[in-house]
Amino acid sequence: MKLATLKNGFRDGRLVIVSRDLARAVDAAPVAATMQAAIENWSTVEPALRARYDALNAGALADAFDFDPARAAPPFPRAYQFIDASAFLNHGDIMERAYNLTVKKTPGVPILIQRQGDDFRGPCDDYAFPSEDDNGDFEGEFAVVLDDVRMGVGAREALDHVRLITIFNDVSMRAHLFRELSMGFGFIQAKPAAAFAPVAVTPDELGDAWRDGRVHLDMHVARNGDWFGHPNGGEMDFGFGELIRHLAYNRNLGAGTIVGSGTVSNKNYREVGSACLAERRAIETIDHGEPRTAFLRYGDRLRFDVTGSDGQSVFGAIEHRFVAPREGADA
Amino acid sequence: MKLATLKNGFRDGRLVIVSRDLARAVDAAPVAATMQAAIENWSTVEPALRARYDALNAGALADAFDFDPARAAPPFPRAYQFIDASAFLNHGDIMERAYNLTVKKTPGVPILIQRQGDDFRGPCDDYAFPSEDDNGDFEGEFAVVLDDVRMGVGAREALDHVRLITIFNDVSMRAHLFRELSMGFGFIQAKPAAAFAPVAVTPDELGDAWRDGRVHLDMHVARNGDWFGHPNGGEMDFGFGELIRHLAYNRNLGAGTIVGSGTVSNKNYREVGSACLAERRAIETIDHGEPRTAFLRYGDRLRFDVTGSDGQSVFGAIEHRFVAPREGADA
Repeated sequence: MKLATLKNGFRDGRLVIVSRDLARAVDAAPVAATMQAAIENWSTVEPALRARYDALNAGALADAFDFDPARAAPPFPRAYQFIDASAFLNHGDIMERAYNLTVKKTPGVPILIQRQGDDFRGPCDDYAFPSEDDNGDFEGEFAVVLDDVRMGVGAREALDHVRLITIFNDVSMRAHLFRELSMGFGFIQAKPAAAFAPVAVTPDELGDAWRDGRVHLDMHVARNGDWFGHPNGGEMDFGFGELIRHLAYNRNLGAGTIVGSGTVSNKNYREVGSACLAERRAIETIDHGEPRTAFLRYGDRLRFDVTGSDGQSVFGAIEHRFVAPREGADA
Repeated sequence: MKLATLKNGFRDGRLVIVSRDLARAVDAAPVAATMQAAIENWSTVEPALRARYDALNAGALADAFDFDPARAAPPFPRAYQFIDASAFLNHGDIMERAYNLTVKKTPGVPILIQRQGDDFRGPCDDYAFPSEDDNGDFEGEFAVVLDDVRMGVGAREALDHVRLITIFNDVSMRAHLFRELSMGFGFIQAKPAAAFAPVAVTPDELGDAWRDGRVHLDMHVARNGDWFGHPNGGEMDFGFGELIRHLAYNRNLGAGTIVGSGTVSNKNYREVGSACLAERRAIETIDHGEPRTAFLRYGDRLRFDVTGSDGQSVFGAIEHRFVAPREGADA
């Protein structure tokens, strides 16, 4: 099943069910008016939503309409908890090598980063940031959305709470990142709003590509129309089950909690490229002694997309433009 | 005006207006059913809420009832964004001296910490944590709640968005803190759920004690009935206006964003004590070469209260007990 939120002038938007081919949509109300309402009552509402999804795919709904990603909000326009990970250790290894960093990791303990749950941006929204000197960057990531998870959950049981999967661009401002990282308290100015794909899907939509708590699909990233990378999500060193177990050690996770994977990164990066500028710049630094790829410039266009085994886009694409504050609708 | 949320079996509870002396309450509906609904529409709903508050204080409301803090949820049972600060530099200075730490601060830049916005605990809820070996601790803090703040706001204008003020216990697990701090990505297991006072108040309730973006009142902390400290909130090295300006540099802050002060800490700590165990233990380490005060034990009772110039409790007290997981209602 595929779900999206359309902008309607209210903060939480309007929940719609989207056809498998992303062409058509239909209102989810009166089953659930918003994504948050759906996830809080998932076991109750899921069968009714799924029946409507099947009818939509069969072309049997008279009230269906064309789905326009440009009108989409993020699937969850806001969340009470958003935690990102850095679960592809290859990414950290490259960064540490290039910049002579030492991150004091504990073996077996994942890196998790508490993030803000509001100010999320839709897949096609212009993205304003204050200055090119902030060294703007992107990170292509997978994310899962949970229903209620109780403190102390195990890694296997945790995966039963993964109700939806999507992708996002974890926009990063590298000029602030090392300063905040070296201070130790996590990220504020280094990690402004994240932008999400138009659609979140139930795990069954991925078929065999969802296994071991990982999405075994390529994250296709393009900058200004040029290929940038297509690393695979299956190479996570910690699966989402392990990430959730670590998180839930001494806290309950409320329905609608979003957990990110960290920027997708593969050991064969010379063939598949990267999903963020910082990693490519680090590789260039290792190879040539200096970075050759520029950070984000105003006017840059980015595209993130994941295709399934049928060649179709799974989540719809994030396709957005980075702009100066005055140009942007959201600044 | 004083507002609280009563538990009613739903996640966001039921918004009530509480009398100045905290004795009586009345439903805020139909003006606003929940705290989040109120803060999102503050300019519209505030006059009607205030009229009802005046009538409640005058004893003129037939539908008023006794206010019972034990039935209170946190004023905001959950929030889309919760950021804590460490704005009393005296606290960090003591910690760095005792443990030979060096936090790489940038002059003029406040320490801010992104935190989870769900799993908040009410003022009298038993608080379960997995193990005494986690070195449980408390931190008495002030917090402000904002309506919508746009990216780029200045420090003075930021204060116009402070709509409510409250206090909370920033529960901390010190066994995880140095590990997470030295890794650099912020706190996960070191900072589980926060517990809030029963009541949030509008700034005018504090009179002259709210000035310069600081609460100039003492935070009274007691452990198992014994005085622990009463440091004053006026000594923040960064006011809430400066904290919000730094936060909003490249993000919008949605209505209902909660910003914490950091543990209240004063330079004359020998007279006024501390608002957290770690600071007292650090002072003991400086004085005697070792800490003498134990971290939280199951069964410990904590109390946090702030009184105004009239000797009345401003926010009501946080009075809770720390328990093993099986005993606790929330574990």
